[in-house]
Amino acid sequence: MKARVHVMLKNGVLDPQGEAVRHALGALGFDGVKGVRQGKVIELDLADGTSEAEVTAMCEKLLANTVIESYSVEIA
Amino acid sequence: MKARVHVMLKNGVLDPQGEAVRHALGALGFDGVKGVRQGKVIELDLADGTSEAEVTAMCEKLLANTVIESYSVEIA
Repeated sequence: MKARVHVMLKNGVLDPQGEAVRHALGALGFDGVKGVRQGKVIELDLADGTSEAEVTAMCEKLLANTVIESYSVEIA
Repeated sequence: MKARVHVMLKNGVLDPQGEAVRHALGALGFDGVKGVRQGKVIELDLADGTSEAEVTAMCEKLLANTVIESYSVEIA
């Protein structure tokens, strides 16, 4: 089975990487880009029967820094 | 309007970051993690009326390195 985890910086946390992308898009002539936030996506190939709770535990322990990042889990 | 772009390394391209995550999960006692691929997710806050073609152009020009990365665009 597959799971996909999205990890994004929480709202209010400065995202210099996203800000750099926004700036670069503007410099390339893409007007109308009002904001950019960049995060991580982690695709996990898991043994069958792994529970969503286990994936959540992985996020809490390793994949996300829950002080500044939020995560969401999708089981596919 | 919002758009979300996923950028992943193409299959067959070595992903050392994903491999490091897989190894760390194993060390933390999460058995049954067979593979991990790590990519980027970019959330764009766009002016209304921006077309999907324009977002695709952003991906081709800046957001993805199409030699080794594939991307997908979701308009929300």
